[in-house]
Amino acid sequence: MTQPAASGLFLTFEGGDGAGKTTQARLLEQWLTERGRAVVRTREPGGTDVGVLIRDIVLHHRGDIAPRAEALLYAADRSHHVATVVRPALERGDVVIQDRYLDSSVAYQGAGRVLDAGEIRDLSMWAAGGLLPDLTVLLDLDPAVARARLDRDAKPFDRLEAERDDFHARVRAGFLGLAAAEPDRFLVIDAALAPESIAAAIRDRVAALLP
Amino acid sequence: MTQPAASGLFLTFEGGDGAGKTTQARLLEQWLTERGRAVVRTREPGGTDVGVLIRDIVLHHRGDIAPRAEALLYAADRSHHVATVVRPALERGDVVIQDRYLDSSVAYQGAGRVLDAGEIRDLSMWAAGGLLPDLTVLLDLDPAVARARLDRDAKPFDRLEAERDDFHARVRAGFLGLAAAEPDRFLVIDAALAPESIAAAIRDRVAALLP
Repeated sequence: MTQPAASGLFLTFEGGDGAGKTTQARLLEQWLTERGRAVVRTREPGGTDVGVLIRDIVLHHRGDIAPRAEALLYAADRSHHVATVVRPALERGDVVIQDRYLDSSVAYQGAGRVLDAGEIRDLSMWAAGGLLPDLTVLLDLDPAVARARLDRDAKPFDRLEAERDDFHARVRAGFLGLAAAEPDRFLVIDAALAPESIAAAIRDRVAALLP
Repeated sequence: MTQPAASGLFLTFEGGDGAGKTTQARLLEQWLTERGRAVVRTREPGGTDVGVLIRDIVLHHRGDIAPRAEALLYAADRSHHVATVVRPALERGDVVIQDRYLDSSVAYQGAGRVLDAGEIRDLSMWAAGGLLPDLTVLLDLDPAVARARLDRDAKPFDRLEAERDDFHARVRAGFLGLAAAEPDRFLVIDAALAPESIAAAIRDRVAALLP
């Protein structure tokens, strides 16, 4: 059932909350749009109408959700999102810039929780019909720095953000391990750098992928 | 991660809507209760608070849900239900009588839709941590007879029930194929028989499983 990704470009941003994914995605979208590319900016979980309902269950349900059930809900969101938003955009030739994808599932669910990372990856790949990004930008940041940024912005924490510190350290290690395993797909950037320096590094790498 | 099913008894009812699963589950519960057994009657989808939310997405969402996303939502419901309701009951030594389980997923999603039946079974088994019923009662009925019963009761059709007739014929064939592949687990009963005859056949088989 795996289908080729066609003529567009699929770019994902990964990293903990507070690492600057939203800022960098916006800057990259702006740059690509100025170059005349059609851009779809999207996110998981919650990038579709069905996904919003699923995201609401995962993030705001009172009481525990069984670990495999949580992984399956994220996979369901991904499956619907890829089938109805990402693949159609890529088939049109658009650039898709997405906040979180496969690697977040593996890092948060696999490395951070009690589940097997390989099983989570297999589940995600089945959900997505085998679609991998052309480039994944990992914004890597010390969780303590990320927490200070989030505190400064006084953003409310959701269920995942409120997990304890060693959880975030394991997630960070999970992301770095995934990047090391697929160096061609990943661009790892120190998210403590100035936003404009980060944006420039991302543009250089994306430029090489454009026709 | 597969765990043994412990000391309880896990009984599932399968078959199309209108085959009499609810009536037979109630009669079996009554008989077991009279024999002093603690019984948990439950269902999928929707057997937990999380499951009710998931069931609502699957059955009542306006617009299509991608096929793999739908399968993953059912699997998420199953995973949470097995972890929080079924396994705890079996570990207490209770009898669990459940309306629909694994075989419904395979018959409806696999045989009825565009997905691979083996993949759906693997997904379900991962979701449930490998838990299989001790006995599965398949109430087999011609879809035309089932439809006439539902029309007579003037029950509203949900999204699945409104599918066209050949879909229901494929589902029926799917259930019968599953029963043929696992004759020790399945009891196949002609659901056109009188309810009391059906109940007696089920009691005979369940009695043999009791200590």
